[in-house]
Amino acid sequence: MTLISFTIRLDEFTPQLREVCWAVPCGSLVPKTILPAANQTVTFECAGSLIRSLLLRQRIAPCCNMTDTQTLKDIATRIRILSIESTAAANSGHPTTCSSIAEIMSVLFFRVMRYKVDEPRDPGSDRLVLSKGHAAPALYACWMENGLIPHSENKNLRRLGNNLEGHPTPRLNFVDVGTGSLGQGLAIANGMAYVGKYLDNADFKTYCLIGDGESAEGSIWESIAFASFYKLDNLVVILDANRLGQSEPTMIGHDMETYRKRFDAFGFNTIVVDGHNVEELIEAFDCAAATKGKPTAILAKTFKGKDFPGIEDKENHHGKPLGKATEEVLKHLYSLLQCQGKLNFTIPKPKSLPPADISNLKLASPPSYKVGEKVATRNAYGTALVKLAQQNNRVIALDGDMKNSTFSEAMKKFDPKRYIECYIAEQNLVGVGIGAACRDRTVAFASTFAAFFTRAFDQIRMGAISQTNLNICGSHCGVSIGEDGPSQMALEDLAMFRSIPTSTVFYPSDAVSLERAVELAANTKGLTFIRTNRPATPVIYPNETKFAIGKAHILKSSGDDKVLVIGAGVTLIEALGAHDILAKSGIKIRVLDPFTIKPIDQCGIVKNAKECCGRILVVEEHYYEGGIGEAVLSAVAEERNMFVKHVAIPRVPRSGTPDELLEYYGINAKHIAEYVKQIAEC
Amino acid sequence: MTLISFTIRLDEFTPQLREVCWAVPCGSLVPKTILPAANQTVTFECAGSLIRSLLLRQRIAPCCNMTDTQTLKDIATRIRILSIESTAAANSGHPTTCSSIAEIMSVLFFRVMRYKVDEPRDPGSDRLVLSKGHAAPALYACWMENGLIPHSENKNLRRLGNNLEGHPTPRLNFVDVGTGSLGQGLAIANGMAYVGKYLDNADFKTYCLIGDGESAEGSIWESIAFASFYKLDNLVVILDANRLGQSEPTMIGHDMETYRKRFDAFGFNTIVVDGHNVEELIEAFDCAAATKGKPTAILAKTFKGKDFPGIEDKENHHGKPLGKATEEVLKHLYSLLQCQGKLNFTIPKPKSLPPADISNLKLASPPSYKVGEKVATRNAYGTALVKLAQQNNRVIALDGDMKNSTFSEAMKKFDPKRYIECYIAEQNLVGVGIGAACRDRTVAFASTFAAFFTRAFDQIRMGAISQTNLNICGSHCGVSIGEDGPSQMALEDLAMFRSIPTSTVFYPSDAVSLERAVELAANTKGLTFIRTNRPATPVIYPNETKFAIGKAHILKSSGDDKVLVIGAGVTLIEALGAHDILAKSGIKIRVLDPFTIKPIDQCGIVKNAKECCGRILVVEEHYYEGGIGEAVLSAVAEERNMFVKHVAIPRVPRSGTPDELLEYYGINAKHIAEYVKQIAEC
Repeated sequence: MTLISFTIRLDEFTPQLREVCWAVPCGSLVPKTILPAANQTVTFECAGSLIRSLLLRQRIAPCCNMTDTQTLKDIATRIRILSIESTAAANSGHPTTCSSIAEIMSVLFFRVMRYKVDEPRDPGSDRLVLSKGHAAPALYACWMENGLIPHSENKNLRRLGNNLEGHPTPRLNFVDVGTGSLGQGLAIANGMAYVGKYLDNADFKTYCLIGDGESAEGSIWESIAFASFYKLDNLVVILDANRLGQSEPTMIGHDMETYRKRFDAFGFNTIVVDGHNVEELIEAFDCAAATKGKPTAILAKTFKGKDFPGIEDKENHHGKPLGKATEEVLKHLYSLLQCQGKLNFTIPKPKSLPPADISNLKLASPPSYKVGEKVATRNAYGTALVKLAQQNNRVIALDGDMKNSTFSEAMKKFDPKRYIECYIAEQNLVGVGIGAACRDRTVAFASTFAAFFTRAFDQIRMGAISQTNLNICGSHCGVSIGEDGPSQMALEDLAMFRSIPTSTVFYPSDAVSLERAVELAANTKGLTFIRTNRPATPVIYPNETKFAIGKAHILKSSGDDKVLVIGAGVTLIEALGAHDILAKSGIKIRVLDPFTIKPIDQCGIVKNAKECCGRILVVEEHYYEGGIGEAVLSAVAEERNMFVKHVAIPRVPRSGTPDELLEYYGINAKHIAEYVKQIAEC
Repeated sequence: MTLISFTIRLDEFTPQLREVCWAVPCGSLVPKTILPAANQTVTFECAGSLIRSLLLRQRIAPCCNMTDTQTLKDIATRIRILSIESTAAANSGHPTTCSSIAEIMSVLFFRVMRYKVDEPRDPGSDRLVLSKGHAAPALYACWMENGLIPHSENKNLRRLGNNLEGHPTPRLNFVDVGTGSLGQGLAIANGMAYVGKYLDNADFKTYCLIGDGESAEGSIWESIAFASFYKLDNLVVILDANRLGQSEPTMIGHDMETYRKRFDAFGFNTIVVDGHNVEELIEAFDCAAATKGKPTAILAKTFKGKDFPGIEDKENHHGKPLGKATEEVLKHLYSLLQCQGKLNFTIPKPKSLPPADISNLKLASPPSYKVGEKVATRNAYGTALVKLAQQNNRVIALDGDMKNSTFSEAMKKFDPKRYIECYIAEQNLVGVGIGAACRDRTVAFASTFAAFFTRAFDQIRMGAISQTNLNICGSHCGVSIGEDGPSQMALEDLAMFRSIPTSTVFYPSDAVSLERAVELAANTKGLTFIRTNRPATPVIYPNETKFAIGKAHILKSSGDDKVLVIGAGVTLIEALGAHDILAKSGIKIRVLDPFTIKPIDQCGIVKNAKECCGRILVVEEHYYEGGIGEAVLSAVAEERNMFVKHVAIPRVPRSGTPDELLEYYGINAKHIAEYVKQIAEC
């Protein structure tokens, strides 16, 4: 028996039906005599299905050509068969995991979801994020059964060059994001649902299928809290509670009541179902569709390896093809099919939604500063966001309760609808950003302290696999943040973002170049990162200066430069100071602003370094590893006759004032001048 | 009115008291007539404090010299005063945050916690993890009030060179771990409590104070699930629900019932209190002490800036000294003090616990392989763990439901008590490891897929600030994992772990060196990382080979080597293959195994490279940025006349067989031989 809790607004019913509703026993909450006002919201909790069905049938337009339940059962069996066959051919993969979700996938793809088989990325269609990506063969099976992929492809799972990879990636046109690192799908689904509800006012729903094992990931609970807080009633989470993790049973096993309590406490409409019962699943999805004001969680009790004789619900079968058991299991599954031939099914049609216009991404007005004026690049970030948003209404900003430090609050002030507060939950923040940018619905900028993006490294890593165009801005880099101390200082962020294969890494050194970095980022495919400073630093570029990705700027040069000095942000300003100090001693240096750390201007660096007798000094607010220094070393790796001195932060720093810390860690103008003298003859 | 739910075993009461208990109205759950059996556990939920007090007083040994409540109130006021004064002197910091926890800290430090002022890291003492690290001044104030720190130090908050930093770090002897990146403290507290309960069978309790803003972090919910699953009744979480985040109110605000439901659903004993009411706090801590079988959460409703007239409970006061309001607020606070002079307080004494013996950390037996035998380094990891554990009973292992892939399951089989299953929750996994290693109670090894440690980058980053000695082993690196595809491949892990300032990074290339890496890691201070391979590769070292950190091994050399080839793991094996291919054409190469990537053997690389005409070829299973290539480039940065060719993974890889992928990405023996030919005359 399934216990369902759901909330309805009564004004959507005819008075007659309302009478009927209260007349039929439906739990003890609403006695017949107390008839709520028409615009009231009432929560029911009922065990029987009769009244629920009555209510729901009234609210949902009846579908004349719904796939019948026996067909859905047959499709579930076919999903199992295809998953066994593909993983057998690949000699790897997760057939037992596919089996536990077979009915869920069948009901979703052939009864519930409204989508276009021939246009999988249609803007108006429902979305599915398969957060438990290792069940990929079940997903592929659905797209074979609906006709998009030829069945002949099933034998090519996981083969080099084939896009039916071990875990789903957007190399497939029916996959929005890469999954496979667990616990990340729901944040992305949040982003899609948020945009659908609040920006697009669209009809599409977002479904997210998560595993029970992955529900131990904290990221899932960040996302659950977000979905509930923003009342994402266009979002449905399906939990595949198959009891078994990879190496042992999960913490919660089949204790469905505990799952129900947890989702309920986090504000979801929760429905516990037998995940292998097609009828119960249909009812649950109907209930989800009828529920307003909160997201729904369908908590499906399932069995890993369901219908695999000798394997079902047993340990030690995770991530393994069936081997010797294959033939016997297939024989059993084929015996379950009622229809061996062509199946009749109907896929509901989505409402149309026009593509979003994400062209004309440029600053509404050029930078407007005075050279020498002191402006923190983090302040300029807020200004640039708004200028971009003025030109294109799909530009949005997200933050993790740091908006008054990162200055993304400028966007909230400019247009609150285009600002998403994600609170202190950076994993969900990044996931929501990736989801919001999916299908090119928005141009998204996510910000918090750069140090705290380390919290979302896995999401950022997966973002590359997802081919995301998310833009990230991390503030408060380096020791120059001062007194707050090391926990707040980003000193490894460049290493992190450089290692992302699709990334572009901006490190603008003043407000003018920061504004242009934001504009360039908006127009750049792949993931971008913009690093900003806490302290105010002088504007060094005239407003009309042009900037390009991978193009450095030379700020000081002569025909007699001893050393090429490379810095960025605060250390570039200090390098300019060193130039002036050294000029008094008659020593000339060339000062280079790389602007982007990835790609770094290899030609510019090599050319200028050669003109400085091959001597390079890199000074940065980062640990030694993975930052500007190593980017420069990579740029000159195949050049003989280079000498690179690299100065960075050598150990966990301390609290202090910004100036004290620049001095203490040897990265201010005075020290830079000393290093130049040391190496001027090397 | 406070609603408290608590569970008691009745056999700990005298029959008389049991009679009294049932006679007094205490909620509706236990009518007087139904007297439970003596050994029964009964859950009470009651609103009044009388019966709770009656019950609790009986269970807890009365303390003759408990600090009186007025003194606790005065101390709370003093904490406020000191926090205002220190942040005013520093001209930065979070006095309003300190104010919301003042009574909690006063009751903890001067009534509840059993510790030694003169020996803050005494093994048997209670622990406190201040997860909301920005309330550091309140912590420092407690250690001033209890006499450890002179009050004169209060003016030195956040000054360079002073250890009273912006956020707490273990540079202070009363701080176990660095905090300041939110949501991390509870995982560490879990580690301490787990070791206390299950390894040490110790009396100490662990307290963890978290903020309401940070409770949005998913890591908190990973940790809550862990604490509940392992029934850590020696752990008490205090939630400071002060309603206000940094930039706006939190999602939940002062809705204490929602907090209660959530913690309750996750299996905690939950108590909602007025966090400024000393008596209620005392009762709640008493209740926590009396609760068996589950951890307790004290959910404290507080006000940010409590007792700061004009500031209390108002927005826009986060992270700011009081400025012009300082004098008036201080005047008000002084007026609240009942005692301006010396206070009488008693700090309860801890039970003694001997230090753990973490000496004699060596393999019980040397490696025992045959050269040429194929063994995956991940398998050897399990073997090495057990050998280490045989010698020292404080060696423990932790994993995130990957133990049958990382082979940490060997430890579970050897001694289940020394294996901690952390399920799929990598942030908590790392935090528990850091906590378990605190105060040198254990030598902890945490493992999962190397790619999934990106999930815990922030915890790892903070681990450096915490001066942790945690050892981490990441398996399944690179494309050689094969068919599972990019989401499971670690290709940025070296960039991540190299950027940790206290790290040592091992990348052993066979089973023999792997075993020695585990042994060396156990003996190395700071955070260590060991990277292991999925595929079985040949053993290349004789069992008696010696290994040292920062010491490379030359595997092939001659007097006429054209190129120094550096690889590790799979690519080192391929480099050896290239050596043989090239030998047939009469081209000689030198092959170097770095063994540790950080520190890398700078002297060895420079010397050998010079002997190869300055030509270096680095081939690795990692993205280009931050891995072995850039480590080598850093090592030769100040050497003129070097030529470094670097081959790595250039983009998001695909699924395929390991061999196919090594070929496809150009990092197998055949390709290495070609690169050598290309650069042999450069």
